Amino acid sequence: MAEDKKQVEAITSMSEDFAQWYTDIVLKAELVDYSSVKGCLVIKPAGYAIWELIQKQLDERFKETGVENVYMPMFIPESLLEKEKDHVEGFAPEVAWVTQGGLEPLQERLVVRPTSETLFCDLYANIVHSYRDLPKVYNQWCSVVRWEKTTRPFLRSREFLWQEGHTAHATAEEAEERTKQMLNLYAQFCEEVLAIPMVKGRKTDKEKFAGAEATYTIEALMHDGKALQSGTSHNFGDGFARAFNIQYTDKDNKLSYVYQTSWGMTTRLIGAVIMVHGDDNGLKLPPRVAPFQTVIIPIMQNKPGVLDKANELAAALKAKGIRVKVDDTDKRPGFKFSEQEMRGFPTRIEIGPKDIEAGTCIVARRDTGEKITVSLSEIETKLPEILDDIQKNMLETARKHRDAHTFSATNYEEFVDAINNKPGFVKAMWCGNVECENKIKDDTTATSRCMPFEQEKISDVCVCCGKPAKALVYWGKAY
Amino acid sequence: MAEDKKQVEAITSMSEDFAQWYTDIVLKAELVDYSSVKGCLVIKPAGYAIWELIQKQLDERFKETGVENVYMPMFIPESLLEKEKDHVEGFAPEVAWVTQGGLEPLQERLVVRPTSETLFCDLYANIVHSYRDLPKVYNQWCSVVRWEKTTRPFLRSREFLWQEGHTAHATAEEAEERTKQMLNLYAQFCEEVLAIPMVKGRKTDKEKFAGAEATYTIEALMHDGKALQSGTSHNFGDGFARAFNIQYTDKDNKLSYVYQTSWGMTTRLIGAVIMVHGDDNGLKLPPRVAPFQTVIIPIMQNKPGVLDKANELAAALKAKGIRVKVDDTDKRPGFKFSEQEMRGFPTRIEIGPKDIEAGTCIVARRDTGEKITVSLSEIETKLPEILDDIQKNMLETARKHRDAHTFSATNYEEFVDAINNKPGFVKAMWCGNVECENKIKDDTTATSRCMPFEQEKISDVCVCCGKPAKALVYWGKAY
Repeated sequence: MAEDKKQVEAITSMSEDFAQWYTDIVLKAELVDYSSVKGCLVIKPAGYAIWELIQKQLDERFKETGVENVYMPMFIPESLLEKEKDHVEGFAPEVAWVTQGGLEPLQERLVVRPTSETLFCDLYANIVHSYRDLPKVYNQWCSVVRWEKTTRPFLRSREFLWQEGHTAHATAEEAEERTKQMLNLYAQFCEEVLAIPMVKGRKTDKEKFAGAEATYTIEALMHDGKALQSGTSHNFGDGFARAFNIQYTDKDNKLSYVYQTSWGMTTRLIGAVIMVHGDDNGLKLPPRVAPFQTVIIPIMQNKPGVLDKANELAAALKAKGIRVKVDDTDKRPGFKFSEQEMRGFPTRIEIGPKDIEAGTCIVARRDTGEKITVSLSEIETKLPEILDDIQKNMLETARKHRDAHTFSATNYEEFVDAINNKPGFVKAMWCGNVECENKIKDDTTATSRCMPFEQEKISDVCVCCGKPAKALVYWGKAY
Repeated sequence: MAEDKKQVEAITSMSEDFAQWYTDIVLKAELVDYSSVKGCLVIKPAGYAIWELIQKQLDERFKETGVENVYMPMFIPESLLEKEKDHVEGFAPEVAWVTQGGLEPLQERLVVRPTSETLFCDLYANIVHSYRDLPKVYNQWCSVVRWEKTTRPFLRSREFLWQEGHTAHATAEEAEERTKQMLNLYAQFCEEVLAIPMVKGRKTDKEKFAGAEATYTIEALMHDGKALQSGTSHNFGDGFARAFNIQYTDKDNKLSYVYQTSWGMTTRLIGAVIMVHGDDNGLKLPPRVAPFQTVIIPIMQNKPGVLDKANELAAALKAKGIRVKVDDTDKRPGFKFSEQEMRGFPTRIEIGPKDIEAGTCIVARRDTGEKITVSLSEIETKLPEILDDIQKNMLETARKHRDAHTFSATNYEEFVDAINNKPGFVKAMWCGNVECENKIKDDTTATSRCMPFEQEKISDVCVCCGKPAKALVYWGKAY
């Protein structure tokens, strides 16, 4: 029983040490493992299955908007990376360099892609000639490498999985529309699938992507009150097009540069799911990304008929499209309950001889702890309803938590106090100058998360310098 | 019209120059593009969509056998690669080396994974302790890098996409069973989905994988008579387990090494589809991996009602699960026909005012060129039948071609003549010595493809040296 026990050993309490709680969960729920490759992690089956569910549902939404998937090389020649000045300055300090191929040193060093703007630009320069070739709305699912100094599973690692969309358009308006469309798609996906409410907004110039004209972001609030940038969408204008000479002939036979966007979400979303929904009993997965939506736990499984009934029930639920497993191992039921809770599966079904005799089973909800007696003749229709309700309830709970941890400040004293003593977002007005962002960061470690699309005017002046305010900003300490 | 024309420009005839025919197809059907990264290719939407269909259907079959997906780091520390002697010797000469991360040179060089046996072994050494932890049946979908000197789209490139399964078992028998199970799964997948018949067999020691005890392979015959190794499955015995110290406690509390396997298929399968099924009109895709199974081409599409009817038909077919698109561009119908043929979509539906009046449409088959008049009221049931028939017919055609190009030789003169003058497989007996394999390769460039599971005895002696024969071997020139 030694290895079984490992899995439901006490998890560090969130309130005691949030960082340790997080690490306990990712390891004990077997989402990841550390590897012998410094800064890189192994994503284990329980973690990768969540990623597969994210991929599938996000990819379907992409394709509905006309996205086509491609695969680009993982290497970028140094000369290609250098073509766009801001971009190379942003990424060069944190890339991995391939300098030897086979037995020979390379004539030109290659970067392992940290992102693929330059490769897509190079492709578009080759294949876009006429307005008929536009728009190009390509995406790829792949891994990228950034030579980070610290490692936190799903949140920060030298290699991570993501999707990166790269588009080219005939007009600036169309590019702006696509940039916003994808940000809205991301936010909707996070709310509907991951049950995480997002603040949508624009990054300040200080925080925008290297080479972008504008970066839009979705920001989520974790249980400890820290912010997590969860997806970004960039409008490049024609900056990259000019650097890479991507021109097309328009309907009037005139040469024009294309306008471009890029947008990405990563395995970081799994970190968000853990830190928004989890509790001291472990992981808590929204039904739509739960590899198993219910675990059937037979009680007194050695009694004749119990296991048969459990398997029969599993088959019926599976036929309804529910992801289900039967835990028929020889562990004690109580142990199995703790394990299902720790692994975050949204429901368990308890079924034993007495239940079978009564024609019922017990459904236990992971989100509320509630136990519901359901007739076996109705379980196939009731369980999907319960799962829907869990999905909704988890979003509501997260939204309430987020709203209860969003504060406002109209002077600097209030602001610093809120940032330091009230974990959460702090809304405050800003003058638009990077000096104030820098001062706030120096004083509090907080950063501007975004200028939300839904602007309010809570004061006339910048919370930091007192000069006239240009925008409301969400501030917070961030992962 | 300049770019449209490019797509249906004449393709080089297969009989004239097979290699050029192949290159024409991959470029003109827009499956790939060359990139600025020497030896690496861009897989464009039309090519990647085929890979997605392969992935989805193969992954479903994997999961039915208990496979779990994971993701491992793309880098391997040099010291880890060196742990298994044969393995490092096999791969070290053809890997890419990362020597710098960020602004600092690395203390230990990293290899960009050419395959991940060593990483999986490292993981299993950490997580396998007891017989309860076995078997481990993990797989990952990723890209790998081998520093090849020549490049042929899908067949040979420095980076390619694949899946690699890596398993650990309690007994040698179980490992052997899994090795064979996956080879059989591969062969069945290729026949049922790609419509490519396979010869299943075992590689000779000369041709087996670096570090394996036994390598099993599926070999396909291309249209030009060359062989293509299409998938391999390796039994490692306990060799890697001993090198990486992967031990578990069995039921009697005794420490034992695990037994391991690995198995992989790659984007090379797309090359096989092209070279087995294609013809002088272009690509020919089996319905199960065709991104579009039918293209609806409206005739006189500007006449009222024609486009509406085409779109209505598309919606009805889509609802039946058929992958369909309407070509409503302003090109001429004849041009659209050529384009659909060149891109290899299995059927097209022609529908114009006269058809609509008659309540019919015309289904043209890409495999036979046959045109079938189908009542519009029956098309939703007829088209799936036609697609099934195409799938079957393509497999049968490929099988007949393969069988007609499989020869036997019982003496060396016959053998060399067959290899040089009759493109195809040559079956001949072999003594089991590498010297004969080397001589045959030197004399003819042919290699032993496999010792087929279905052994025949066509002579008592080795076709090369005349010593007693140990096995029948399929020989051939190979990609």
